Amino acid sequence: MKKIALLGSTGSIGTQTLDVIREHSEHFQLVSMSIGHNIDLAKKQIHEFQPEVVSVADKESMHKLQVEFGDKVKVLCGEEGLIEVATIESADVLVNAVLGSVGLQPTLAAIEAKKQIAIANKETLVTAGHLVTKAAKIHNVPLLPVDSEHSAIFQALNGENHEQIEQIILTASGGSFRDLSREELKHVTLEAALKHPNWSMGAKITIDSATMMNKGLEVIEAHWLFDIPYSHIDVLLHKESIIHSMVEFVDKSVIAQLGTPDMRVPIQYALTYPKRLERKTGDRLKLWELGALHFQPLDLERYRMMALAYEAGKIGGSMPTVLNAANEEAVSAFLSKKIDFLSIERLIEQALEHHDVIKEPTLDEIVEIDQRIRDLIHSKVN
Amino acid sequence: MKKIALLGSTGSIGTQTLDVIREHSEHFQLVSMSIGHNIDLAKKQIHEFQPEVVSVADKESMHKLQVEFGDKVKVLCGEEGLIEVATIESADVLVNAVLGSVGLQPTLAAIEAKKQIAIANKETLVTAGHLVTKAAKIHNVPLLPVDSEHSAIFQALNGENHEQIEQIILTASGGSFRDLSREELKHVTLEAALKHPNWSMGAKITIDSATMMNKGLEVIEAHWLFDIPYSHIDVLLHKESIIHSMVEFVDKSVIAQLGTPDMRVPIQYALTYPKRLERKTGDRLKLWELGALHFQPLDLERYRMMALAYEAGKIGGSMPTVLNAANEEAVSAFLSKKIDFLSIERLIEQALEHHDVIKEPTLDEIVEIDQRIRDLIHSKVN
Repeated sequence: MKKIALLGSTGSIGTQTLDVIREHSEHFQLVSMSIGHNIDLAKKQIHEFQPEVVSVADKESMHKLQVEFGDKVKVLCGEEGLIEVATIESADVLVNAVLGSVGLQPTLAAIEAKKQIAIANKETLVTAGHLVTKAAKIHNVPLLPVDSEHSAIFQALNGENHEQIEQIILTASGGSFRDLSREELKHVTLEAALKHPNWSMGAKITIDSATMMNKGLEVIEAHWLFDIPYSHIDVLLHKESIIHSMVEFVDKSVIAQLGTPDMRVPIQYALTYPKRLERKTGDRLKLWELGALHFQPLDLERYRMMALAYEAGKIGGSMPTVLNAANEEAVSAFLSKKIDFLSIERLIEQALEHHDVIKEPTLDEIVEIDQRIRDLIHSKVN
Repeated sequence: MKKIALLGSTGSIGTQTLDVIREHSEHFQLVSMSIGHNIDLAKKQIHEFQPEVVSVADKESMHKLQVEFGDKVKVLCGEEGLIEVATIESADVLVNAVLGSVGLQPTLAAIEAKKQIAIANKETLVTAGHLVTKAAKIHNVPLLPVDSEHSAIFQALNGENHEQIEQIILTASGGSFRDLSREELKHVTLEAALKHPNWSMGAKITIDSATMMNKGLEVIEAHWLFDIPYSHIDVLLHKESIIHSMVEFVDKSVIAQLGTPDMRVPIQYALTYPKRLERKTGDRLKLWELGALHFQPLDLERYRMMALAYEAGKIGGSMPTVLNAANEEAVSAFLSKKIDFLSIERLIEQALEHHDVIKEPTLDEIVEIDQRIRDLIHSKVN
């Protein structure tokens, strides 16, 4: 029985993680979870999965749950609560499925507590990849990717020698606006941006897909997860999202992982690795029904966000922290209809331009920069 | 330094094996080779690679080479010569790249001599899969596939648990006549059949591609190599031959191996497994230039040969021996313009229909059946 701590149980990855646990209740057990503000859904989840510890965002929600679940469940709140959920004694693995850089400190704490880390929260690696990977190495803890692209690469690398990687090729659907020119992007609406052609995901990541920042963050994530220089990480437009990503080796052989777009496959793989477990639900890939898969080169002029992400990644140090913090706040402003679509990238670009890079930022410096950039963007959009 | 014995050095796989040896002369050395009738090419190869032992088809050629190479090279002929090439003391690995069932006995002898077997000769496994796989198990010798499809599956299975395979999916280009109806197949010429759209291969295998018997033989080969029941081996038409084959696992994740059509990649992989070696020559896969990959279901009515191969495979015993022997002779008759294209399958079908299956044929029985079927087809076409 693998015991699971879950950060972000009510989000898209969180609920799908619970689907996987439910489908394989003989293999998996939820022991702790954190939620944001969706208390109603959280109550149902607590009733169904009966975790030992639950953490919520604020004291008010904490009191509500304490009343309802009494002494059966330990209910906590805030950052302290997140850390207790992540490091709970009984857990074997932490699934980090929160949004944004809030996942960073609990993840570092879980690594120190020698939990395996199933990482769906790409901001954690983007904002502090050097700290997370270093800690994982010191404590000999595996970082198991949950993102479909990184899971694909992880699966393609199964049994392979890391030294023999020539190139990592991340595929990108191109998001909601892949068929629009930059001129047309000026006039797109929030509603249109929220319609992803292939994947069912949360609002923030769907906007990140539309801007392609999602792929940019994934490039940085891949750099850290697989210890590969940026010059050996490529992005390929593939609108069907069937090839989830690929690895080209030095002998020019390419290994790819494919499947229908269903996040439960990579979530489950992170929980069962190195084994696989039968999935009774979900659709099989039927290439003969699809008929064709399409590919296009990535145009960095069209997808300006990708260029910014590569740039921030290559400069390194505290630059990706700025990229990520500015993006989170700008997307949040777009979701509140405070700014238009192209202002997201404009705000990020300005933040990057004015940042004095710190080479190897400490956790405190990262937290400080993260907050400073958020405040900066916030002040610009309000 | 890996020392290589090569059966069939002047054929398509043979010369490409020598390309790989030449490109990595610091890793590989040719110690023995067999050739058929292309003495001129063989002479050049002997001069370049200086093997210890060479075997040729007949005594006349043997004497010619003995005159030219004197005491520097031991020159032999016939089946005995093949076996000496295959079992030479100094070899670590035998590359079996001859055509047809003639590769069977040397392969069994090499297995007994504990050589690794890189198997490009699918007829060996088709005609006596149970004997070859059993011998390999007893002598603890790996069977390393060289066929691009089986190499793809072998690579996709790297680090995976065999128990967790749901389906093996062999891809098929459809051969020279993939766009023709059965009606149109009645009138095709030898010249047209010899034009394969993607791969550069020998005449026999190119005709096998046009009839799709090649894919049928590969299904049987996959059954033996990977110990998978026929009901879990599928064939998918994929005209670009870029995805070389795939494995679907029980969690609905699919791993595929891709590349430009270049046999040197799987040949080299069989020689370097489990490592990979850099290839300085050959083209990288550029999906963004290709633009699209296409897939179609396999129609067993259109591709009658595939239905015959599945049938023969499922019945098992001596049936695949009949399938293979009848096919070799019928293709040979087609190459000599003695029969038309659709007569190849008609002759095979008749041979299968009239055969009384032996459940677990011995090597002697296989050799006898193989010869009987060849004589039968021969008598029908002359």
